[in-house]
Amino acid sequence: MSASPVLPSFDPESPVFRAHEGGKLGVHATQPLRGREDLSLLYTPGVAEVSLAIAADPTLSTRYTARGNTVAVISDGTAVLGLGDIGPLGAMPVMEGKAVLFKHFAGLDAVPVVMETGTVDELVEAIARIAPSYGGINLEDISAPRCFDIEEQLKERLDIPVFHDDQHGTAIVVLAGLHNAVRVLDRRLEDLRVVVAGAGAAGVAVTRLLQRAGVRDVVVCDSRGIVHPSRPDLAGHKKHLAMSTNPRGLSGSLGDALVDADCYVGVSGGTVPEEQVASMAQDSIVFALANPTPEVHPDVAHRHAAVVATGRSDFPNQINNVLAFPGIFRGALDAGATRITEAMKLAAARAIADMVEEPTAECIVPSVFEPGVADAVAEAVRRLAPTASRPGPTAG
Amino acid sequence: MSASPVLPSFDPESPVFRAHEGGKLGVHATQPLRGREDLSLLYTPGVAEVSLAIAADPTLSTRYTARGNTVAVISDGTAVLGLGDIGPLGAMPVMEGKAVLFKHFAGLDAVPVVMETGTVDELVEAIARIAPSYGGINLEDISAPRCFDIEEQLKERLDIPVFHDDQHGTAIVVLAGLHNAVRVLDRRLEDLRVVVAGAGAAGVAVTRLLQRAGVRDVVVCDSRGIVHPSRPDLAGHKKHLAMSTNPRGLSGSLGDALVDADCYVGVSGGTVPEEQVASMAQDSIVFALANPTPEVHPDVAHRHAAVVATGRSDFPNQINNVLAFPGIFRGALDAGATRITEAMKLAAARAIADMVEEPTAECIVPSVFEPGVADAVAEAVRRLAPTASRPGPTAG
Repeated sequence: MSASPVLPSFDPESPVFRAHEGGKLGVHATQPLRGREDLSLLYTPGVAEVSLAIAADPTLSTRYTARGNTVAVISDGTAVLGLGDIGPLGAMPVMEGKAVLFKHFAGLDAVPVVMETGTVDELVEAIARIAPSYGGINLEDISAPRCFDIEEQLKERLDIPVFHDDQHGTAIVVLAGLHNAVRVLDRRLEDLRVVVAGAGAAGVAVTRLLQRAGVRDVVVCDSRGIVHPSRPDLAGHKKHLAMSTNPRGLSGSLGDALVDADCYVGVSGGTVPEEQVASMAQDSIVFALANPTPEVHPDVAHRHAAVVATGRSDFPNQINNVLAFPGIFRGALDAGATRITEAMKLAAARAIADMVEEPTAECIVPSVFEPGVADAVAEAVRRLAPTASRPGPTAG
Repeated sequence: MSASPVLPSFDPESPVFRAHEGGKLGVHATQPLRGREDLSLLYTPGVAEVSLAIAADPTLSTRYTARGNTVAVISDGTAVLGLGDIGPLGAMPVMEGKAVLFKHFAGLDAVPVVMETGTVDELVEAIARIAPSYGGINLEDISAPRCFDIEEQLKERLDIPVFHDDQHGTAIVVLAGLHNAVRVLDRRLEDLRVVVAGAGAAGVAVTRLLQRAGVRDVVVCDSRGIVHPSRPDLAGHKKHLAMSTNPRGLSGSLGDALVDADCYVGVSGGTVPEEQVASMAQDSIVFALANPTPEVHPDVAHRHAAVVATGRSDFPNQINNVLAFPGIFRGALDAGATRITEAMKLAAARAIADMVEEPTAECIVPSVFEPGVADAVAEAVRRLAPTASRPGPTAG
């Protein structure tokens, strides 16, 4: 097969295409099927007994089906990586990759479900309808602002954990890094001026979780500058952001927001010129998370900032969701959690931060392959999980 | 854990519950994840190249994702085995068992999807929306008459094979058995008087496929007797059945239909008294497929009939769908088939029949574990498969 002329980057002999040949996932039976006797246990007539028992007592389904260890990785392909709306088929390799990570880091059986996109209601309807198949739902790469409503409505309707990783996974690992950054700098979250650049899925979730963790001064910027209540162009979640952030009532550009700021969290691409980093307060913290090109190169940021993190594996302090989501779902499913609460997210961030015994400016988060991270996160999450028999505080 | 008092048959120590502990399926990665280098190939940043290539040329998705080897086993739990409407959670053990069979007999990766039930439109919408995740869709245990419309609408909308196994799997294996029964008896399908007892999913599909195969005289009976055009209580698919069957214009009971009939196919439970079997024509053929209790005991049927088949593994001539569906999907997916046509079903039935070199009254179908059945069916199906580049005859 020769490369298609419309696809200059499609080289079937390249390592990346070779690694994807045939896909990255398989399904296997966990029980032997050696002959008629096994068949009559695993399938008819024996299986009828198990089906009837579950129909009479649905709590048995997590014990007698794989559902209790299964996470659906669901996307409509509208915001895939930095590639945008490439559709469900294009999204599939990413969802399979995510499923590989779920298995590797947490022993979870994750199945990709890619969907034709549609309205919020259409997607919610379809996902809610297939939800009985799974122990939890990881939403992935769904464009903002639809992702907020889809997640909220599903959380309302379903009694299994629903977690949009682009929002909360990112927020949890950012908070973990910030915990250790302030420890290194001997400061407190409460006293930080934080600027979040990006008002999409990640920006909104980072803002909310940092506030929950105690940060009082968060200023959010979108492509038009600082989000504040007198901007006439805001609606929906941005209007809400404007009301709940920016306590000093700033207006202007990202550059204006960065003057004297203690912490920059970039989650929307774009670039930050060196002079803006220089304008930040002393001992500043820069999280330049755009991938593959950080908003400011770490070497440049280091001239002015005390702690620098990126999304890349080839620089210190990689802020990577894989530190969070495997353990979050492992803990939630083990506990039979009905949802992922804010308390569980905060505990997950703390558990990740605590994996670094002696944080330094060059090491505020554990490495992605550091053993024990998912276990520690799972344990922290499990302890706080609301379950059917222990509902916990109201919806979080 | 002790057995719940409301569930006298739930004994966690019994072989069947032990065999289901933890479920019967797992998901695994097919590629090694040894460290950062693998991570950057299987996930970001490498995966972006594969996603972009598929977005530009969707045909690459079967090569570079697991989709091309994946079958969804979908049910809303409304007609599970003989148990009726036990809901999606109750249906799950059966769907997992089916997935085990797909893997064992055809090497296919099958994933169970159990759904909250709803209207035909709601189910079709949800299934169509998630369809890009799969190479084919096996519908299972969905109640009649909804199953007919659901399958028809999905076939209309999707460009992947959609196959309701309770209909077509049963029909294919019945036809396979009948091919060899007439061979044993030195007769022809065209000359048989066939009575189909049951006008649900299996009865309708058996009737249609036997007609396609050449049977001219089929009389269908439901719980109220012979289906004929002057019955005032018929609607929908039964009305259509009344117009297209029963060429001699019979009316009355199942017992009336069986007088001088050559072949009885029971697919709806109930019982057939010995005197009715005795009233059939000489050298009659009895397929008493109700499970676990055949409509007439094989020993009783044998006093009058020349060939007797059941759905049970402990009598000769087990009519079991597993002879058909693994090979059907294997062949369809290998060919990149856009649908399963009538020609493919007829070819599958012939391939199953031909696995028995010298049919006898005690051996008209191969054993479920006979090696090579799925391969033979797949080969037969593959040759006839309509594909995107070779559409074949109009919708079948």
